[in-house]
Amino acid sequence: MALFVDYYQLTMGQADFNAGNNSVITANYYVREIPQGQYLIAAGLEQVIHYILNLRFTDATLDWLAERGDLSADYLASLKDFRFDGSVFAVPEGTLVFPNEPIINVTGKSRDVQLFETYLLCVMNFQTLIATKASRIVQAARGRPVFDFGARRAHGRDAGILAARASFIGGASGTSLVLAGCLFDIPYVGTMAHKFVSERPTELAAFQDYAAAFPNNTTLLIDTYNTLEGARNACIVAKEMEARGARLRSVRLDSGDLLILSKQVRRILDAEGLDYVQIIASNELDEFQIDTLLGSGAPLDSFGVARDSLREGAPSALGGVYKLVESDGRPVGKQSLDEPFKATIPGKKQVYRLTDTAGNYAKDWVTLWDEAVSEGQPLLVPVIENGELVSDFPNLQDIQARTITELKKLPDSHKRLTEATPYVVEMHPSLLAHVEGTS
Amino acid sequence: MALFVDYYQLTMGQADFNAGNNSVITANYYVREIPQGQYLIAAGLEQVIHYILNLRFTDATLDWLAERGDLSADYLASLKDFRFDGSVFAVPEGTLVFPNEPIINVTGKSRDVQLFETYLLCVMNFQTLIATKASRIVQAARGRPVFDFGARRAHGRDAGILAARASFIGGASGTSLVLAGCLFDIPYVGTMAHKFVSERPTELAAFQDYAAAFPNNTTLLIDTYNTLEGARNACIVAKEMEARGARLRSVRLDSGDLLILSKQVRRILDAEGLDYVQIIASNELDEFQIDTLLGSGAPLDSFGVARDSLREGAPSALGGVYKLVESDGRPVGKQSLDEPFKATIPGKKQVYRLTDTAGNYAKDWVTLWDEAVSEGQPLLVPVIENGELVSDFPNLQDIQARTITELKKLPDSHKRLTEATPYVVEMHPSLLAHVEGTS
Repeated sequence: MALFVDYYQLTMGQADFNAGNNSVITANYYVREIPQGQYLIAAGLEQVIHYILNLRFTDATLDWLAERGDLSADYLASLKDFRFDGSVFAVPEGTLVFPNEPIINVTGKSRDVQLFETYLLCVMNFQTLIATKASRIVQAARGRPVFDFGARRAHGRDAGILAARASFIGGASGTSLVLAGCLFDIPYVGTMAHKFVSERPTELAAFQDYAAAFPNNTTLLIDTYNTLEGARNACIVAKEMEARGARLRSVRLDSGDLLILSKQVRRILDAEGLDYVQIIASNELDEFQIDTLLGSGAPLDSFGVARDSLREGAPSALGGVYKLVESDGRPVGKQSLDEPFKATIPGKKQVYRLTDTAGNYAKDWVTLWDEAVSEGQPLLVPVIENGELVSDFPNLQDIQARTITELKKLPDSHKRLTEATPYVVEMHPSLLAHVEGTS
Repeated sequence: MALFVDYYQLTMGQADFNAGNNSVITANYYVREIPQGQYLIAAGLEQVIHYILNLRFTDATLDWLAERGDLSADYLASLKDFRFDGSVFAVPEGTLVFPNEPIINVTGKSRDVQLFETYLLCVMNFQTLIATKASRIVQAARGRPVFDFGARRAHGRDAGILAARASFIGGASGTSLVLAGCLFDIPYVGTMAHKFVSERPTELAAFQDYAAAFPNNTTLLIDTYNTLEGARNACIVAKEMEARGARLRSVRLDSGDLLILSKQVRRILDAEGLDYVQIIASNELDEFQIDTLLGSGAPLDSFGVARDSLREGAPSALGGVYKLVESDGRPVGKQSLDEPFKATIPGKKQVYRLTDTAGNYAKDWVTLWDEAVSEGQPLLVPVIENGELVSDFPNLQDIQARTITELKKLPDSHKRLTEATPYVVEMHPSLLAHVEGTS
């Protein structure tokens, strides 16, 4: 784990060590730009906190680095007893955040704080992206359950696991990935693959085999050969199940024109009195397709989605950054003249969220860290102080509940799938005066 | 690891167990469509093979599944001694592959073969995507070194590690991720962050601190405040290094107009006799930007790239699939009438690659597995037979060398960054006759 760093974190550490840089700094994780929509749902903090608290340099790690010869024995020895003894303030997972607001503040020795950059960025950027995307898809599904089916498109094993976690935070009802169900105690679901159908002599035989094994929880994949024929075979099996006192739960569509097919399949099922059998759609769905399908009256009851779809325009990464904002009490920031967008607002900052009289979110103020602000609630709360964990990790159900509550408070204009209005984030007058004073 | 499955792999296993399905099948990994360009570089096989050979269901795993109550005790007991005893034939990593060609054939008991689907797909799809993307970027860089700087944008830890591996396969010169350097014995590199500059009183002081620590390997990041001023500070440090008998290696640009700035910085360096100091560019570069920059004469010497860039149009996933093609010697496939694109060519298949008289690749034939073909070379070679590993894992340098050799043999028309011509992949007449006979 200790080597999950970009090498410059160690070379800078070496140079800091040589130069006797013992300053205490604050680094700030924030997102400059939202790739899709006008809000983000913060996710990934629990993994970041575990990393910060458990980062150790083992002898094997230090020996390996020593053999390479680029870093000095003295510097490597200084890493041997590394324990983070600083503090972390952060926005709880499931909280709405907006561009240029601090999401995590890490305060500690300069050499320590920079060690967390690579892991913090990759975990926060990825989970926040996925939680946000999932919330958009759940919104498009209008109350119908959405399940993560994305592991096979994930960028390796961690990505599959973390995407299941983040999509649950964003409002998904569960995942197909059993390991995520095991690790995070969230529902996992399974249907059948085309393989199961095509290796049997007939589709009907495949359906019968599956239904016999899962009398209370059978979903039949009906598009292997011909979807309407598949629906008729599903009806036969459903009737057989009824005769045994059981019920077919659902059928799944994974190809073709989902609007036309879902209507036809619904009619076939209903004509047999099987109105209780649900229709699940998968097949590379995103929020726009689901919105269009349901807007057109597709009788679909739930959705399986792989968020890393091939569609152009789906953002594959969130460009969050982790930037130095304060050093030994002095506000600092990058003030690039060549690319003003990449500038960093100097100073350690807090965010206050203001509500209107109806309790809906009205605007945010980004303030100096210790500014006394009489309105609104501060968003960043203590998580680690003096190297000790000072908050509990909520379970995923509670984080999801926070997301749902938060989204209810956000006016619809900011949540529209397209053409949403940006939410107002203002620099508090005190911060503004301060920035003008330092630049 | 055993739970890194989509749940349907276990529910189908249960239904197969109940039905006494003991058939021997072949599943085939292939890619239907290339999201960008006209070729793919196969990557990820080593991880897949380790997974297949080492997949075990521990007592803890089986106990956890048993507690859930959905799978029967008999079926779970049958997983206790799971060992794959089948065979795997595959295209070696670093080999060019094209749409609808088999890349991996897994043959074994039906219930076993389906357990590998999720992991195989996520690892092959991701690494093949990244190796291919890296090869395009390396091509655009026209011989200049390209380094993977992507860990902070990766989808979690595994993604960072596997992307470093895959981009090296595709031709990258190294990575910023130390752990990947350690695991795969590939070069890792580091420069400095804006933090290192902005926490010091002056940029010059920061450069001096860094140069003192790395007299033989210093790269200075010169865009924290003003790139041209940064270049002049780099000159001062380079002269100080010369006085100590050392040399500044390079400066790095991470923002702004890289064409204009690189030319200005080159002039500033050259005017001081520092023509040996190289200029490195990073800042969300892809193959198109690098091609444009170099085509316009930007004096850039190497590139740091994060492949998961925010740019629209960069594919975030490869849609490779793992499909049943043969069961107990009978060719099978999905023949969707609703979406012909999603059909699978039935039968276990081999690929023969034909060369022209100059030794360049001319076309591929997809054949029946045991078809005697007198021309060309078969691409799928034995990796596992009867559950035993029968081939060595090449080191990454050798895989990269294979990629480079392969790309040399592919005519330029198929390699152009845009508007490339599709490579010809034909179904061999025998396969065609066979498919027509079965459909």
